[in-house]
Amino acid sequence: MTDEPIRATSFDVAALAGVSQSAVSRAFTPGSSIRESTRLKILEAARKLNYVPNSIASSLTKSRSKMVAVILGTLENPFYVATLQLFSQELQKRGRQTLTFTLSDDIPADEAIMRVLQYQVEAVILTSAQLSTRMMNLCHDRGIPIVLFNRYVPHSGVYGVRCDNVGGGRLIAETLLQTGARSFLMVTGDPRGTTSQDRVRGFLERLLEAGIRRDAILDYPGGSSYEGGMRAIDAHMATGKPMPDAVFGIADIMAMGAIDALRGHHGLRVPDDVMVAGFDGIPEAAREPYKLTTVQQPLPAMVEETLSLLNLDEPRQPYDLGRDRPLPGRLIWRGTVPRGER
Amino acid sequence: MTDEPIRATSFDVAALAGVSQSAVSRAFTPGSSIRESTRLKILEAARKLNYVPNSIASSLTKSRSKMVAVILGTLENPFYVATLQLFSQELQKRGRQTLTFTLSDDIPADEAIMRVLQYQVEAVILTSAQLSTRMMNLCHDRGIPIVLFNRYVPHSGVYGVRCDNVGGGRLIAETLLQTGARSFLMVTGDPRGTTSQDRVRGFLERLLEAGIRRDAILDYPGGSSYEGGMRAIDAHMATGKPMPDAVFGIADIMAMGAIDALRGHHGLRVPDDVMVAGFDGIPEAAREPYKLTTVQQPLPAMVEETLSLLNLDEPRQPYDLGRDRPLPGRLIWRGTVPRGER
Repeated sequence: MTDEPIRATSFDVAALAGVSQSAVSRAFTPGSSIRESTRLKILEAARKLNYVPNSIASSLTKSRSKMVAVILGTLENPFYVATLQLFSQELQKRGRQTLTFTLSDDIPADEAIMRVLQYQVEAVILTSAQLSTRMMNLCHDRGIPIVLFNRYVPHSGVYGVRCDNVGGGRLIAETLLQTGARSFLMVTGDPRGTTSQDRVRGFLERLLEAGIRRDAILDYPGGSSYEGGMRAIDAHMATGKPMPDAVFGIADIMAMGAIDALRGHHGLRVPDDVMVAGFDGIPEAAREPYKLTTVQQPLPAMVEETLSLLNLDEPRQPYDLGRDRPLPGRLIWRGTVPRGER
Repeated sequence: MTDEPIRATSFDVAALAGVSQSAVSRAFTPGSSIRESTRLKILEAARKLNYVPNSIASSLTKSRSKMVAVILGTLENPFYVATLQLFSQELQKRGRQTLTFTLSDDIPADEAIMRVLQYQVEAVILTSAQLSTRMMNLCHDRGIPIVLFNRYVPHSGVYGVRCDNVGGGRLIAETLLQTGARSFLMVTGDPRGTTSQDRVRGFLERLLEAGIRRDAILDYPGGSSYEGGMRAIDAHMATGKPMPDAVFGIADIMAMGAIDALRGHHGLRVPDDVMVAGFDGIPEAAREPYKLTTVQQPLPAMVEETLSLLNLDEPRQPYDLGRDRPLPGRLIWRGTVPRGER
C-alpha cells in the first residue's frame, strides 16, 4: 500500500449533502427507498469527496462491538498510565470496554491499527506514535472515528485533543525568568512529536522575547523517559561546561530523571545550584524527593473532550470540526523553582 | 444469586473420564457419534462432578474471540503497570488483544467478571480483588479459564500464579536480622489478600525463630499505596514511641511512601536512623532517592506461567492441577539496608 489522500466517510458525505447518514446508506443500497433528488444530491457529494461505500462500515452501524481501542506506547511515563486508567473508567461508565494495544519496536503503529480494526472496535484513541496517512485511510474507510490524544497531525482533519503546549512552554519560561534565570537547558522529547515541538517552541519564544540569547539555551534529547532525563544531564556535565541556571524537562518524568542525576551523579543542589521545571503534572512529580514545578495538563477535561468528540452513542452525527482547540494547562509552583528573584 | 459450589467444566469431566473434551461434547449432543461405553463413562463422571453442559461454552469452542480479559485494580502501584504492559505484549505475540477492566468502588469484581464474559473473552486474568465463589462459578459454567495473578484462593481449584511470598518475607527478615535489627515496623497491604498475608507470615516466622519478641514487631495498615506508606509512618510517629530499627513495606510502593515520610515529615535518615526494605522489585524503587532493598518478583516468569496455564491455542487440554506452585523471588540488596552488622 502507498500513501493516499484521506478517504471520505459517509459522515462527511451526509454533512456535505445536508442529509442524514442513513440517507447516504440508502443511496448506496440497491432497492432502498429514497427520493431521486436526494439520491442525486448524495451522489454529487460522494463524487466531490471521492467517497466509496464500504460494507464493513455498514455492518458496523448495525451491530456495535461496545469496545474502544486505546493504542499505547510504553507505560514508563506515568502520564500515560493515568490516561489509560481514566479512559478505562470513563468508557466503562458508558458501557464500553477498553481494548488496549501496546506498541513496541517489532509492532509498528500501522500494524496496530490494522489489528484493532479486526476487532470491529467502535473508535480508536491513539496516545502514542505518529499517525500515517495510511492509518488515517484505514480508519476513515471503515467509518471508525479516531482521536489523537496528547498529539495532533496538522491539517489532517483528525482530532488532536491536547493541552495548550505552546502556552504551557511560555508559562514555564516566564516562571523561570521571574526567578532570575538567564541560562537554560532543555531536555526534549520525541523530535517528531507535536507535543515536544510545541512545548519547546513556546519556551524558546518567550525566552527570546525577554532578550535571552539563543546560545544561552542548550538542548539535549531525553527520549521521553526517566533514564533519558538522567542521560541528558550526564551528557551536559561530560562537556565540562557550566550547568545553566535552570533545566526544563519537557515532560515531568524526564525532569525527575534530571533531578536525580543532578543530585545523585553530580552532587548539585536543586534548586540552590540549579532550578528544574517539568510539564504534565503527574502525581509522582509532587512527591517528597521532587516537589517539581510544572504545568499540569487538564487530563480529566482532555479525556472528556475525547469522549465527547467520539460521540459513541450517536456516531452518525458528523464531527464538529470547529472544536479542534488545545485546552489550557495550569502552573503548579513547587520547591524546584524558588519564588521571587534570586 | 447465592454462593454455590464450583461447577465442573467439560475439561474436568474429560479429565475424570479419561477422554477428550470433544468426546464430552459429543456425549451431550443429540445424534452425535460416540461409543455407548464411552458415553456411559462420561455420564458417570459428569454425575460425580455435578456437570451441566452449557451452550455458551460449546459455542465458544467454535469461534474464538482472540481476546483475553485482564482485570485490574488501581494502577497506582507500578507493579501492576509493569504486569499489564507485559501481558499486553505477550498476548499480542500470541495473536490476542487485551481487554482491560478497571475495578473501582462502584464496580465490584463480580460485576467486572460478568461484564467481560459478555465479550466472550477466551480467558480471564485477575490481578486484583478477591475471587468470590460466585465469580468462579460464572467462569467455570462458561468453560472460560481463569488465572489469579499475584494472589490465590486456597482450595479453590483456581490457579494462583505468584511469587513465593512466604519465602520472600523470610528473606527480608533474614537480611534485616543480619544487619543487627531487633525491632521492626511492618506496613501491611490488603488484610484479606493472600499476598500481604503470606509476606507478613514469612517475615514474622523468621523473626520469631530468631528469638525476636512479638511485641518488638509493630504493624500498621498501608493500603497498598504510596500515600498509605506515608500514613503508616505518620501514625507511628504520632504515638510518640521510638521508631523501630527497621521498616518492612510489604510492597515497594508503600516502602517508598514510608521513606519519603521518614525523611520529609520527620527528618529521619535512611538507613542511618532506620532501615527500610520492600517487596516487588519495581524499577521506581531502584531510583536515586530510594535505592530500596527488596525482593524482586519474577514478573516475566509469572506472566509466562500464566500464559502457559491458560494454554490459549489448545484450550481443550485439561489443566495440569499439579502446577500450582509459587515461584521464588530474588533478594536485591541496596542502600536502604547497610551490609554487615552495625
